[in-house]
Amino acid sequence: MKIVVLKFGGTSVGTVDRIKKVANIIIGYVKKRYNVIVVSSAMSGATSDLVKKSKKISNNFISSEYDVLVSSGEQVSCALISGRLNHLGYKSQSYLGWQVPILTEGNHGSSRISQIYKKKINKFLLSGGIPVITGFQGVNQNNRITTLGRGGSDASAIMCAKFFKAQKCIIYTDVDGVYTTDPNTLKKAKKIKVISYEEMLEMASLGAKVMQPTSLQDARLNRIDVDVKSSFIKKKGTLITKRKNISSNKTIAGLTSTKNDAKVTLIGVKDKPGVAASVFKPLSQNYINIDMVVQTSSGNKKETDITFTIKSEDLSKTLKFIKQNKKIKYRDLIVNKNVSKVSIIGVGMITTPGVTYRMFQTLANKAINILVISTSEIKISVLIGKKFVKKAISALHKEFKLD
Amino acid sequence: MKIVVLKFGGTSVGTVDRIKKVANIIIGYVKKRYNVIVVSSAMSGATSDLVKKSKKISNNFISSEYDVLVSSGEQVSCALISGRLNHLGYKSQSYLGWQVPILTEGNHGSSRISQIYKKKINKFLLSGGIPVITGFQGVNQNNRITTLGRGGSDASAIMCAKFFKAQKCIIYTDVDGVYTTDPNTLKKAKKIKVISYEEMLEMASLGAKVMQPTSLQDARLNRIDVDVKSSFIKKKGTLITKRKNISSNKTIAGLTSTKNDAKVTLIGVKDKPGVAASVFKPLSQNYINIDMVVQTSSGNKKETDITFTIKSEDLSKTLKFIKQNKKIKYRDLIVNKNVSKVSIIGVGMITTPGVTYRMFQTLANKAINILVISTSEIKISVLIGKKFVKKAISALHKEFKLD
Repeated sequence: MKIVVLKFGGTSVGTVDRIKKVANIIIGYVKKRYNVIVVSSAMSGATSDLVKKSKKISNNFISSEYDVLVSSGEQVSCALISGRLNHLGYKSQSYLGWQVPILTEGNHGSSRISQIYKKKINKFLLSGGIPVITGFQGVNQNNRITTLGRGGSDASAIMCAKFFKAQKCIIYTDVDGVYTTDPNTLKKAKKIKVISYEEMLEMASLGAKVMQPTSLQDARLNRIDVDVKSSFIKKKGTLITKRKNISSNKTIAGLTSTKNDAKVTLIGVKDKPGVAASVFKPLSQNYINIDMVVQTSSGNKKETDITFTIKSEDLSKTLKFIKQNKKIKYRDLIVNKNVSKVSIIGVGMITTPGVTYRMFQTLANKAINILVISTSEIKISVLIGKKFVKKAISALHKEFKLD
Repeated sequence: MKIVVLKFGGTSVGTVDRIKKVANIIIGYVKKRYNVIVVSSAMSGATSDLVKKSKKISNNFISSEYDVLVSSGEQVSCALISGRLNHLGYKSQSYLGWQVPILTEGNHGSSRISQIYKKKINKFLLSGGIPVITGFQGVNQNNRITTLGRGGSDASAIMCAKFFKAQKCIIYTDVDGVYTTDPNTLKKAKKIKVISYEEMLEMASLGAKVMQPTSLQDARLNRIDVDVKSSFIKKKGTLITKRKNISSNKTIAGLTSTKNDAKVTLIGVKDKPGVAASVFKPLSQNYINIDMVVQTSSGNKKETDITFTIKSEDLSKTLKFIKQNKKIKYRDLIVNKNVSKVSIIGVGMITTPGVTYRMFQTLANKAINILVISTSEIKISVLIGKKFVKKAISALHKEFKLD
């Protein structure tokens, strides 16, 4: 069998008319003699509506029933897709997580797929049928419905591609691919034709909302080529694949920027071993994600300054925990909410010297001050004032020949 | 175990606030040391909304996927009820049809429950849990979701009461019981405290919309006492039970009237054996329900008049089939859309002579002309002009001492 997994996100199946269009896309692949496995999200808005109801029932809705509640969304979209395919004369059947079954492990609301039983789906495929599988959900060993967490339909699609040994996995969404940077920030942004898992992972983690990072990681581990495409317009998308499949000569694949970061600096912290740990321990215990961290000595040898960034929404909680923290003493605490992290990403930087220098020089030429720096093998991130973001993105986009 | 089955209809769980009230009703029974099994319909409006979507997808939506689609409604309401019970500190879990499992047979969209597996639910009850079971749905032998047809949640509740040997089955709805006649037609209508299955069946078939006739039949066959109550106001409801449990001295339990009947009369039909059959065969083949039928000779011995009633909505189809029918010849065809069927129902009429006479005399006293009569062991129905309905109901209500 020549299997393709087609995954449709919430906006792609957001209305009955959209579902009709989706059915036509599916049939296009059937006509090309593919055995198609469809994976669908809930109709956009459906899940949020259910979440709202759960919040009115309880501010601490029990997670096992929450999964029963929200998983009904994909049941609706998949039945409608399958109904449409049947209407058009194609043999199709919806498969809910428990019907496949898709076995998961881990907690309700954030389960992981451990096994997909292939027998029923394979039999249906061989009979010429189009299975339409609910994304985002499965069952655990007690036969209770579980969900994979928001955006988990991507993970369902990737795991289907893995277990059914699909030749292709195509993620249909409301954007037509991955761009060198957010087109809303820079008009000159270009669509990337092909990108490595690693680059895409960095871009997704840094704010490009095309695919969930964990699903990308699954795709990378299982070496599954993923095509990101629009279900709204017929255009070539972006292929996410292995590094060695990429012959691009670009040093940098793309740029990202964040919108809601905050910077906290503790001035004059008593410098002794373990001081950083005692700052961050209560924060991590309370699920506050620390992003960039810098520790510098401020002249006085017995004191140090600690700077770190967090999501703006965590700021008030963070300040509370720091002020409550009896284990640290500091002279002053400075907060800056008007900061943004700008990153350049590319596997090319491993083999191309001078990328760091070029980035800093480009920003210096525009008189943009760098507050914090953090780097990995394939990305460099700098924290700058929020008002400089557009200017920085534009200059870097040009410098690294992405225009 | 002292088991009670509580069934909540769509309006009873129509909003999040209603679901909170329903949780409180459930807890009331738990506090009385009952082991409660909850059966719930979808939130009112939810099913209609899904049906609308299916119609936009296909005017002939495949029934197997239709069942997947609409069954999502109970999944939502049951998860919310169970979520609320957990929020209030009670151990509760939703059970979808396939999780119990509730096995069904027959076609999609109109399946019947053949078996309810008790093991999981009993174990949960014994552990002090409150199972919340989705009404209206089950699974067939192929593990595909099935539905019982509209109003089928009543059937789910009755069958749960049967299989789990419940002491009580309480149907919570938006009316506070069964009335001697429709309170909208007659203000003097009184709530019936206790009524036999047979009387309730006749009343339900004749227009009292409190419970589905097929579910009542299930209750009768399995000797399950059914209490019909309001979930909106705290009041005693109506108990539906065996005849011999009823010590009432009322001859007549209640009165009903229909709103949308039409009468068709074929004048001067050639009278030969099989003529009635040739009139009705094409109608029954096209799913047109014939209600009352009268055949009378109109003087001329070779001719006869055939009168019958149908639902108004079937009238144009009926006339089309009669006019197309080459097997019958008639001199004239008369249609009357302004008719209504008024019925008196009561097991008492079996042992009380003169009920028929009293009914006809009462109507005659009010100068109401009877067009057609039909009787069964425990009911007498007459067809009269629609404009006389209120007057007839009022006079009969008084005559049979229901005021």
